[in-house]
Amino acid sequence: MAERLAFDATDELLATVAWSRISEPGEHVAGALVRALGPVAALDWVRSESQQPPGVPPHIGWQAAAARWRPRLQALDPRRELEAIRRRSGTVVLPDDPRWPRRLDDLGDRRPMCLYVLGSARIASITHRAVAVVGARACTDYGRHVARELGVGLTGRGVTVVSGGAFGIDAAVHKAAVVEGGPALAVMAGGLDRLYPRDNLELLEEVIENGAVVSEAPPGTAPMRQRFLARNRLIAALSEATVVVEAAWRSGALSTARQAAELLRPVGAVPGAVTSMASSGCHRLLREGVAVCVTDVGEVLELTAGLEPAAEEPFTQPGLLDGLGPQEARVLDALPVRAAAEVDNLVRVCGLSVTETLGALGLLEMAGRVERSGAGWRRRQS
Amino acid sequence: MAERLAFDATDELLATVAWSRISEPGEHVAGALVRALGPVAALDWVRSESQQPPGVPPHIGWQAAAARWRPRLQALDPRRELEAIRRRSGTVVLPDDPRWPRRLDDLGDRRPMCLYVLGSARIASITHRAVAVVGARACTDYGRHVARELGVGLTGRGVTVVSGGAFGIDAAVHKAAVVEGGPALAVMAGGLDRLYPRDNLELLEEVIENGAVVSEAPPGTAPMRQRFLARNRLIAALSEATVVVEAAWRSGALSTARQAAELLRPVGAVPGAVTSMASSGCHRLLREGVAVCVTDVGEVLELTAGLEPAAEEPFTQPGLLDGLGPQEARVLDALPVRAAAEVDNLVRVCGLSVTETLGALGLLEMAGRVERSGAGWRRRQS
Repeated sequence: MAERLAFDATDELLATVAWSRISEPGEHVAGALVRALGPVAALDWVRSESQQPPGVPPHIGWQAAAARWRPRLQALDPRRELEAIRRRSGTVVLPDDPRWPRRLDDLGDRRPMCLYVLGSARIASITHRAVAVVGARACTDYGRHVARELGVGLTGRGVTVVSGGAFGIDAAVHKAAVVEGGPALAVMAGGLDRLYPRDNLELLEEVIENGAVVSEAPPGTAPMRQRFLARNRLIAALSEATVVVEAAWRSGALSTARQAAELLRPVGAVPGAVTSMASSGCHRLLREGVAVCVTDVGEVLELTAGLEPAAEEPFTQPGLLDGLGPQEARVLDALPVRAAAEVDNLVRVCGLSVTETLGALGLLEMAGRVERSGAGWRRRQS
Repeated sequence: MAERLAFDATDELLATVAWSRISEPGEHVAGALVRALGPVAALDWVRSESQQPPGVPPHIGWQAAAARWRPRLQALDPRRELEAIRRRSGTVVLPDDPRWPRRLDDLGDRRPMCLYVLGSARIASITHRAVAVVGARACTDYGRHVARELGVGLTGRGVTVVSGGAFGIDAAVHKAAVVEGGPALAVMAGGLDRLYPRDNLELLEEVIENGAVVSEAPPGTAPMRQRFLARNRLIAALSEATVVVEAAWRSGALSTARQAAELLRPVGAVPGAVTSMASSGCHRLLREGVAVCVTDVGEVLELTAGLEPAAEEPFTQPGLLDGLGPQEARVLDALPVRAAAEVDNLVRVCGLSVTETLGALGLLEMAGRVERSGAGWRRRQS
């Protein structure tokens, strides 16, 4: 007999947020269940305490997994997570949202339940062309220099740099992208209510301004070691290719590279002096055949040259949101490119109140940017 | 009608030296002819002015090649070349000599006619385990440091370093081998009467002392550009594997690497900073898949790990020539390992007079190192 929950478990958004709370990042049993049943029915099954979920293959792990998830459902109220992310003007993007980066679907059952997002940029758009540049926290001046060059070069060519927002290589490449005025994408291991590391806060705020900071972990999640490894799979999956700039022999950046390789995405490694321990992980990737040698931005772009572009529209041209107030920009950005959306839906996606959303739609309509369509609203094609 | 020659063209040694003089290094038409007919009959054919050499496939190039070679035969006296090399206490090693490094035979028709050798070491023995370490003349301190490390490490593990005796990487690796007291092998592009470059003379004399300096070019040959490229094939062919330490984008060291790869020998490249032009050729080899990334001597040895040892006896143990005078050492070294040799043959190989050779054989016999065998002499197996 299902116990009483504090929230409406038939709401898909709330049920998804609940899943992001009760399952571990990348936990493939949870992913398989939610992909098969949808988040609402999957949650129903967990509460039902039946032996076997309907419509999924028999598996010895179902009951054990449900036993792990069930205690976390008690006292869970996903509205708190939503409230926390909206307080930071963030949003939650679900896999069926047009803003969802389709590349994440290559993770299969290890796909995140949802993405928590801070930032004005449309995630699907800025990852249309995206390369991960990752590396050691304890980098050298050489590594920092190369990361900066790649950050400037990729951004200048309309390619978003994806990284982990950490010290060292991550910070250098994010900084370069931000200085170039391009979008950058930082993927956090913990919840977005506590950006980590704290000493990078100013830089991460600039990334939010110019691009986005995302996490699959709901607000309130501490960035623990296991979560960093899970986070690395998102960096790899969000990017067309992954480049390691400097990495020690056992650097976490190597796990990002290996996860990219498992996804059959190209991996590059920047060589360095064999006398530098900070390059030994890069040379290891070269020797193991995981990575190819890349020495400049041109060679990084060659990695992605033969790839199909992602099935999303290219990065939004500068100017689309120009001259709009922040609320209008958020509402316009939340509108699907071709389909119409109802106001309730927009409210949920934007994290604005109904009154704010309707006000913004009115201003956008006067500006000729949106139009009514049946019971909803759509973008006007220019 | 053959013109008169200044020398006995039926003598195989003289005919071979003549071939090394009239053909270009690595000239495969000459190589094919000499391999098919032997040097004496091949020379006969050149002098005969007949249309087609006997026993070789018809080829449009035979007459043109003979027309190139014939003028050089005039006034040629290979005894002068022999005298010049013997004056420097050097020898000439022919392909049927047990001292011949069998690995050179992989060059096929591009095999050298013979090797001119300065140095006490038995070439076949010191190349039993041998790795080429080559690189830029204009190297950096980093490249010099790495070359030194590899030279010390390889020599310490009983592996002979093979290089070109040039400035920069070549000199650094030769120097390291010599300092370690191991044999080193330097391959010259020009004749051994003029060791090149002159500023490396002291180092090259040390290499002669500890190993050998060799060339396929007879004394009197100037080291011209084309000869350096031909020389590089010998460095590659003499070695189990070739490692490039530093090389600019169009460095000659890349040709050595490519020739090694064509011989299906493993090639390694040492990475460096992508900001260093001196490493750009190494990174090019890595990107083109010609070379694998090597960062220390252990990884260099891994290159050769799966290879069959060369079909020669291992490097002569220290002690074999201990306590012998220089003439006895040369005679003992010239004796085949298992077969017997006649005195005339030994005289030719050692570059000693008949009297000197017989004297040395007498002393070696008393020392229990050699014994008579039919019309000749052989080593006593200990």
